[in-house]
Amino acid sequence: MNNKSVFDPKFYKNFNPNRMRIYTFKAGFKKKLDDLLIIVFEKSINFSVIFSKTTTPSAPIIWNKKNMTNKCRAIIVNAGNANAHTGDTGIKIINKYVNQLSKEVKCDKNEILVSSTGVIGEIFDHRKITNKIKNLNDNKKTDILSAAKSIMTTDTYPKTSVKKFKIGSKIIRIYGFAKGSGMISPNMGTMLAYIFIEANLNSNQLKKIIQTNVENTFNSITVDSDTSTSDTLCLFSIGDQEKFGKKDLSLISKSVNQIMEDLSLQIIKDGEGISKLIKVNIQNCKNVYQAKNVGLNIANSLLVKTAISGEDANWGRVIMAIGKSYEKINPKKIKIYFGKNLVCENGAAFKRINIKKLDKYMKNKIIEITVDLSLGNKSKTIYGNDLTHEYIRINGDYRS
Amino acid sequence: MNNKSVFDPKFYKNFNPNRMRIYTFKAGFKKKLDDLLIIVFEKSINFSVIFSKTTTPSAPIIWNKKNMTNKCRAIIVNAGNANAHTGDTGIKIINKYVNQLSKEVKCDKNEILVSSTGVIGEIFDHRKITNKIKNLNDNKKTDILSAAKSIMTTDTYPKTSVKKFKIGSKIIRIYGFAKGSGMISPNMGTMLAYIFIEANLNSNQLKKIIQTNVENTFNSITVDSDTSTSDTLCLFSIGDQEKFGKKDLSLISKSVNQIMEDLSLQIIKDGEGISKLIKVNIQNCKNVYQAKNVGLNIANSLLVKTAISGEDANWGRVIMAIGKSYEKINPKKIKIYFGKNLVCENGAAFKRINIKKLDKYMKNKIIEITVDLSLGNKSKTIYGNDLTHEYIRINGDYRS
Repeated sequence: MNNKSVFDPKFYKNFNPNRMRIYTFKAGFKKKLDDLLIIVFEKSINFSVIFSKTTTPSAPIIWNKKNMTNKCRAIIVNAGNANAHTGDTGIKIINKYVNQLSKEVKCDKNEILVSSTGVIGEIFDHRKITNKIKNLNDNKKTDILSAAKSIMTTDTYPKTSVKKFKIGSKIIRIYGFAKGSGMISPNMGTMLAYIFIEANLNSNQLKKIIQTNVENTFNSITVDSDTSTSDTLCLFSIGDQEKFGKKDLSLISKSVNQIMEDLSLQIIKDGEGISKLIKVNIQNCKNVYQAKNVGLNIANSLLVKTAISGEDANWGRVIMAIGKSYEKINPKKIKIYFGKNLVCENGAAFKRINIKKLDKYMKNKIIEITVDLSLGNKSKTIYGNDLTHEYIRINGDYRS
Repeated sequence: MNNKSVFDPKFYKNFNPNRMRIYTFKAGFKKKLDDLLIIVFEKSINFSVIFSKTTTPSAPIIWNKKNMTNKCRAIIVNAGNANAHTGDTGIKIINKYVNQLSKEVKCDKNEILVSSTGVIGEIFDHRKITNKIKNLNDNKKTDILSAAKSIMTTDTYPKTSVKKFKIGSKIIRIYGFAKGSGMISPNMGTMLAYIFIEANLNSNQLKKIIQTNVENTFNSITVDSDTSTSDTLCLFSIGDQEKFGKKDLSLISKSVNQIMEDLSLQIIKDGEGISKLIKVNIQNCKNVYQAKNVGLNIANSLLVKTAISGEDANWGRVIMAIGKSYEKINPKKIKIYFGKNLVCENGAAFKRINIKKLDKYMKNKIIEITVDLSLGNKSKTIYGNDLTHEYIRINGDYRS
């Protein structure tokens, strides 16, 4: 699908991040393409991070959780091998390349953030990474687009987002990049995202911003309801010393939300084998948990997903999916819309469905399913995608 | 896949059910085939039933729950239209044909059990059924194989099972039939099953037997994790007056379990688009809930299902699926086997995997994934299937 960012591409063309050096390498995890990313900040900066809630975390997540504080000086990400379920050896590999980089950059080990994405369960030779770290400064710096490209796995396009705005007379820029297209589910699928704010915020401020905004962005998307071992979302503060009022912070948070929404939508639009994006709006619920549960049951239902890929406005499957959420609802109060087309009300099919108009709507690339439960005033939107032959081809053949 | 019952087909050939008249009809729900089943017992008998736990139940489930007691004289099932989310009209349709049958058979309305399976949300003309009920006795009686055929939807073969055994000098037979192949998930997918015991048991005894045995049979299978609006499992007692001791009842219950296991495995082997059956054994867990949760996360994972269809022993995806169950486990203690091939232990890949042997194993039609959590002594087996292009073809095109 279209990978268009919601933000101005013109601005993005002239964009250069400050205060960081970005390097990408062909380390040999992928066959030909760049597969290693190293970012070094000019000084140690504040950051906040959210990891996958999985109970089988990858070695990088175990390592970060054990070692990292809330200061970051450098990032190392490789794509093509997740270094997950690789036992003590997986941790030793990380220690090797982290030690190497801490010497090279002259920083503390626990100021280095590590991520890996790719196949689970395979040990790799640490020299793939350590060899590239030697004389790091001699390499050519690159940009965030190249950074985004270097961490892709089954992604079909790089995911970046940039935004700028003024606080007082000062321009603040927020930018980020991400990867992910399969094993995507709320609580974060195989998803890596790095977002940078050109403003000096403390750890608590960053933590609050990241936690406020993750729920309606990265935690509201699902490709296949499979949560990965490796997911990591980071927010970095790379600006000068500054004091912000409540209103300023709110503006920054709102802008971070837009970047996070943009990146998460780019991920879902790149869902493996996607032919259509499905936007599921659950409205007038008792509470947001109910809305989210119903929305996820719809967005993750294989029968709903295949109906959408078959361009069939099969609202019966939506009713089925609502029912299997086991939420206490009143079937007679449910209204279902495909786009603006009402298809179901008063516990039965809407009597004046315009089949021609509905069939035409189902040919769209973005299908919006709106469910009104008429139980309260809480709402939630979940983003999913359809299920196609291509998903099966990609995931049946991934390793072979 | 093979639809072979676990029981002796020779016995089944000479099988005729007593004390019931079975009729099947072409009522016009399907294009050409039989799609209406009516069974009339010679007298009112005891029965026990379990319905789908969905919160959007079909009209037949609503009707049965409201009207039926624990006595049954007749059954009406149609295939091709689920009469689900059809509002008050759906209930009125049922009243029409139930009234007709109660007059014809001279029984009470609330002794008639109704089921429907097929498309959700479409009203049908009650005369499709009422017209067939008139002069019911004039029709030719048929057998349970024809009964099983008449309730099929996307099923590719009819599902029947028969068993006989002795209590004292008396031969007792148990037999049943079922339908289901998509929208199958624990707590019962689009699944209808009717099982008859040629012994006189009271309602409490039937209830105990059905509840004891549903958990490890129909509630342990999953095709697509989609639970239907219509599922119904019934157990009927059609025998003469008899007194059974504790030991006899236990033997009957065990035999019912075998019939239920046989039928549920026939359903999963007929899962939409299946190319391989996946048997997931979760062993040495803290409790059975943990075992079931982990097992379902594996059996329902699209990435595990596509790996199996691609004949890829991708145990990394199994690790991922264990992690997203959010159960408190110790990754280092997990052992994973494909068949008898150990692939993972001590938190990493097993070092002496015989790739050739493993690749050969993955070509089998039944793939057994065994996960040992080493946390306790409870176990559970979940049956699932792989995800293929055929599933997408079937469900993308179902209505068109």
